[in-house]
Amino acid sequence: MHAVDIIAKKRDGVELSREEIEFFVQGYTRGEIPDYQAAAWLMAVCLRGMTDREIHDLTLTMAYSGDVLDLKDIVPFAVDKHSTGGVGDKVSLVVAPLVAACGLPVAKMTGRGLGFSGGTVDKLESIPGYRADLSVAEFKAQLEEIGIVLTGQSADLAPADRKLYALRDVTATVESIPLIVGSIMSKKLAAGADGIVLDVKMGNGAFMKTLEDAEALAQAMVHLGGQAGRRVVALISDMNQPLGWAVGNALEVREAINTLHEGGPADLREHCLVVAAEMLALGNKATDTSEALTLASETLASGAAWRKFRELVEAQGGDVRYVDEPARLPQARLIEPVPAPRGGYLVSVNAAEVGKAVVELGGGREEINDPIDHSVGVLVHHKVGDSVQKGTPLFTVHANDETKLAAARERVLAAHTFSDTPVQQLPLFYRRVAG
Amino acid sequence: MHAVDIIAKKRDGVELSREEIEFFVQGYTRGEIPDYQAAAWLMAVCLRGMTDREIHDLTLTMAYSGDVLDLKDIVPFAVDKHSTGGVGDKVSLVVAPLVAACGLPVAKMTGRGLGFSGGTVDKLESIPGYRADLSVAEFKAQLEEIGIVLTGQSADLAPADRKLYALRDVTATVESIPLIVGSIMSKKLAAGADGIVLDVKMGNGAFMKTLEDAEALAQAMVHLGGQAGRRVVALISDMNQPLGWAVGNALEVREAINTLHEGGPADLREHCLVVAAEMLALGNKATDTSEALTLASETLASGAAWRKFRELVEAQGGDVRYVDEPARLPQARLIEPVPAPRGGYLVSVNAAEVGKAVVELGGGREEINDPIDHSVGVLVHHKVGDSVQKGTPLFTVHANDETKLAAARERVLAAHTFSDTPVQQLPLFYRRVAG
Repeated sequence: MHAVDIIAKKRDGVELSREEIEFFVQGYTRGEIPDYQAAAWLMAVCLRGMTDREIHDLTLTMAYSGDVLDLKDIVPFAVDKHSTGGVGDKVSLVVAPLVAACGLPVAKMTGRGLGFSGGTVDKLESIPGYRADLSVAEFKAQLEEIGIVLTGQSADLAPADRKLYALRDVTATVESIPLIVGSIMSKKLAAGADGIVLDVKMGNGAFMKTLEDAEALAQAMVHLGGQAGRRVVALISDMNQPLGWAVGNALEVREAINTLHEGGPADLREHCLVVAAEMLALGNKATDTSEALTLASETLASGAAWRKFRELVEAQGGDVRYVDEPARLPQARLIEPVPAPRGGYLVSVNAAEVGKAVVELGGGREEINDPIDHSVGVLVHHKVGDSVQKGTPLFTVHANDETKLAAARERVLAAHTFSDTPVQQLPLFYRRVAG
Repeated sequence: MHAVDIIAKKRDGVELSREEIEFFVQGYTRGEIPDYQAAAWLMAVCLRGMTDREIHDLTLTMAYSGDVLDLKDIVPFAVDKHSTGGVGDKVSLVVAPLVAACGLPVAKMTGRGLGFSGGTVDKLESIPGYRADLSVAEFKAQLEEIGIVLTGQSADLAPADRKLYALRDVTATVESIPLIVGSIMSKKLAAGADGIVLDVKMGNGAFMKTLEDAEALAQAMVHLGGQAGRRVVALISDMNQPLGWAVGNALEVREAINTLHEGGPADLREHCLVVAAEMLALGNKATDTSEALTLASETLASGAAWRKFRELVEAQGGDVRYVDEPARLPQARLIEPVPAPRGGYLVSVNAAEVGKAVVELGGGREEINDPIDHSVGVLVHHKVGDSVQKGTPLFTVHANDETKLAAARERVLAAHTFSDTPVQQLPLFYRRVAG
């Protein structure tokens, strides 16, 4: 078998065999196939697509490129969630402790932010001391002990994905359903959870710009999870405007803590409860999602979810004084509220633009090894459909540099558009896809 | 400007600006853009195509990536020819001295063989001492002195093409009309000829498998040459069966010498005269191609073309004893005529298969730095449409290894198919494309 023949086959739109996919992915992971051949192959996959069978073989090859955890001897049923990435998406920080507080073990490995999408690991690292680099042994031990783990992806799991993802990022081959499915599901399968809830974002602040694309992705992942013997449900949710108010690492941790204390934005709270309910239903903690929603709401109200979050932070080395008193979390030097330049109904709060503004403030990264500033960010004060009065605060910029503050102000101002006539609110969720 | 954005644009089928093409191609040539980004971009170009404007900008950017020769101060009008590559294509060896003997200067840089296509440089190097590595100064001096040069591509000309071509070869991005146009025409423009005749091969032994593709390539190149101020004509010729009888380096040189002595296969002789006539007409050595054809035939018959070939060999350091007595040229140890396994009319003499058989004998190369054996090859004794009697010689294998000989025999046997009813001959040329 020759790498160049496999590239040519995919270039011509021919279905690859399992052996060819294994040869290529394993060869690349071992360093026998060079980056440039993998790059050409990735672009061919991007433009020619893959059949369900190819996606299945790709994902399993990637999953089995490293260790595959078996959590069966630790907990009877472990649940995980994954978001395809968005702006202001701090859902995992609330949902993981909420579900664990309901007695269902949550075993989650998570990523860093790239481009205008935030990453849960970056957010957690706003808390001094928090370790997101647990070993597989630590991961298992903590899951057994407190029923919750929230850490970065272990280097021993799905190494093929790490290598392929880094290459996709610099070769414009990120936006491909087969490659996204392979990347997400290989990590999820390797991390060992029995039930997985996928939060597939759709809109200008997400990879998937249309409901059609989001649904295709959701269906491919649910189908694949089922084939691999996991219980998987996908929710397609809105990412045309930021989720909640806060965008930026420490600001989002503060908002998540507020939500765990029953405060925070209404949209975030509802989003978290719906995702938690799906996870609880998958893990048979309720007979259906409606019963699970009641359980989740009650658990949130009881304070148990907050206490589980605190336990998680402590277990992973975080300084709990920072979450007990969130005012201690990193604070930006310059905090500037920006008034609405006109009155009217909000037509858009463009999530991609708000996300880019935060990256430019230093709160995100263009390249995977860039350092980030946890303190900066943007708080939006309104949602699409809100009626806003001229001169009232529209959003607030948290910055550490005057020039960057001015640039972020302009960008976020332009992200807000108005209408004189009433505007419909955006839905939180568009569709639910189950196996 | 970022390389990844340019890749994404082409991935999405958007037209690139001249500035973007220059940024990418120049950046890659200078080593600032890595191979893996260029590979992804090449695959995107392969699958998304390019507009005429993009092809123009790509070709000029590649042509101007190094020196661009101006031959105006040396000769009033220099002519060149280029074949897109085939099996048994020794046309340049005959046509270049024939046209030069008619008084029209021929300035040609040419390539090595890769895959089942032979290369003129390899063929010429069958002649001991022949130098195909002339410097630009030597190229110009020889053109001025004897009106003919036939050498390898100078490293100073179109370096972008050399780098891109090497990458295309290992990333399955060779078969792309915009990239083929860019590669061929950038070298032709940089080499400075005023008139260019393109021999675009079509058939199983060529990159272009259909008349439609061949015509698209021919038209793109003729159009581009005109835009760049050169006179260009393209001929679309058959490459479903080998051209002439000989396939293999020294065997082809011998056949070319026979043709210069008015012997050799009828198809090769006619092919050479037609190409020469087009070159002569471009250079205004005749009022039209029909008058040019007469001039070419007379010059061939006069022996002047042969004398010019001998002068060329001598000027470039070749030992003329080897062309005066072609029996001195490298000879294989094993020469085996293979009889026709049945009688009938020949339906096919598959050029690609004959070409691959010669590569396997050691006469071609899979990778650009592989050594080659000049002595081996295959002589086919019949053309499609010929009536063949069972047991008469069908082809002859020249080999230096018994095992390889047996493999070549089987492959070339299978390349011949028969019919009991008469079969039409293949045409030499399908179409002529002029500006």
